[in-house]
Amino acid sequence: MNVLLVVAHPEAASLNGSLHRFMLERLTAAGHSVRVSDLYAMRWKPALDADDFPSRDVTAERFDPSLESRLAFEAGTQTTDIAAEQDKLLWADAVILQFPLWWYSMPAILKGWIERIYAYGFAYGVGEHSDKHWGDRFGEGTMAGKRAMLVVTTGGWASHYAPRGINGPMDDLLFPIHHGILYYPGFDVLPPYVVHRTGKVDEAAFARITKELGQRLDTLFTADPIPFRRQNAGDYEIPALTLREDIAPGKTGFAAHTA
Amino acid sequence: MNVLLVVAHPEAASLNGSLHRFMLERLTAAGHSVRVSDLYAMRWKPALDADDFPSRDVTAERFDPSLESRLAFEAGTQTTDIAAEQDKLLWADAVILQFPLWWYSMPAILKGWIERIYAYGFAYGVGEHSDKHWGDRFGEGTMAGKRAMLVVTTGGWASHYAPRGINGPMDDLLFPIHHGILYYPGFDVLPPYVVHRTGKVDEAAFARITKELGQRLDTLFTADPIPFRRQNAGDYEIPALTLREDIAPGKTGFAAHTA
Repeated sequence: MNVLLVVAHPEAASLNGSLHRFMLERLTAAGHSVRVSDLYAMRWKPALDADDFPSRDVTAERFDPSLESRLAFEAGTQTTDIAAEQDKLLWADAVILQFPLWWYSMPAILKGWIERIYAYGFAYGVGEHSDKHWGDRFGEGTMAGKRAMLVVTTGGWASHYAPRGINGPMDDLLFPIHHGILYYPGFDVLPPYVVHRTGKVDEAAFARITKELGQRLDTLFTADPIPFRRQNAGDYEIPALTLREDIAPGKTGFAAHTA
Repeated sequence: MNVLLVVAHPEAASLNGSLHRFMLERLTAAGHSVRVSDLYAMRWKPALDADDFPSRDVTAERFDPSLESRLAFEAGTQTTDIAAEQDKLLWADAVILQFPLWWYSMPAILKGWIERIYAYGFAYGVGEHSDKHWGDRFGEGTMAGKRAMLVVTTGGWASHYAPRGINGPMDDLLFPIHHGILYYPGFDVLPPYVVHRTGKVDEAAFARITKELGQRLDTLFTADPIPFRRQNAGDYEIPALTLREDIAPGKTGFAAHTA
């Protein structure tokens, strides 16, 4: 199968660098084809701006990022860096996003990778919008049939991210990425692999981590994804997009969107 | 009072641009001193990397972002762009972060502003770390006594962000920013002001929005902040940083950290 590894860490000689090389070797040894987007090494342009649309009508009253991304995607006038990353996503059967958790989310350079390559018509604005079908998203879309998984490192302890930990539960911190960035354009999202207390990873801990992570890679195409609810399959009122009264009655918040 | 307006939108002739100018005028007319960080207009460097530390020991085995930020902050060798934004935060009595919600979080350029200026010793790694006090954070820290508020725009409907809306509740989506980025270094965090369905904002809607937002600005220094629990005031076990059994018994998730 085809696997895309996306990594966002500024130092190759880091724990993230070691985990990246481990994944590359493990997946290759298992017979997969692997491509890499090492965002810092590529010096990926992080911020979405008007420079991303060199063919745009510069006499327009204002720069509308969503409109310009639609026009450039449709006309084939996207920049080569954006089109190349979209091609990698289309090529991949599975995508792994790997990053250190910085201020409770992904690093800016990875957020900007999403913002720039998730064009209108590619990752959103796909499919029919009607009173019965609110676009191909949350379970449908361009990435349908592909898998995605996060590999995340934190300096903090596991207990800090526990259900009653001060940082909030890790599953909730990652929900906007799992559900809003990956499930939205159609990926099946696997549970994340999280490393805590990165400052304390010695040889024994690294051996344990790579054993666990290796098992996760071995089951990348067979493990059950997080059972998010499909938007257009009956669980939601359209266009309000709230859960129907008889679905998870009384439940609110992120967890209500998992069956 | 001193107010810092931080805005992250690539187009001045946008709704965000209009709201930014409205806030600047309203606050100035009320007698406040206002400074602005218009991140796109400043061409803010979004990604934290080794170039941020020109004085670092280039013979070091590896680039450690946290260690280098500590050394540069302590030695006064930070880059001028980073030091200037830190000075604005120190000057401000209140900080307003204004942005469009892109993929359920802040734009990359704003995330990178946080990552680069939140140095070790400035925004984290502050205060005593012991079995009784886990650093000056979550209610204490460099920003103690200052206020912060988000002004956020979304294309989606309010119902999509309701307690049972498909995107997840807006309060939960913003929790990692409110609690993890603003409360962490000591800010008192006010409830956000959120504009929905930006594509449908006509003159009447804009009048309503500026009336509401104006009232929020008029009470910037008097409104009650979100009552997050202080880390070192007895509600949490240290160092596990989980809520004590008798605090919000049985509650889990982000909401458990609000008293």
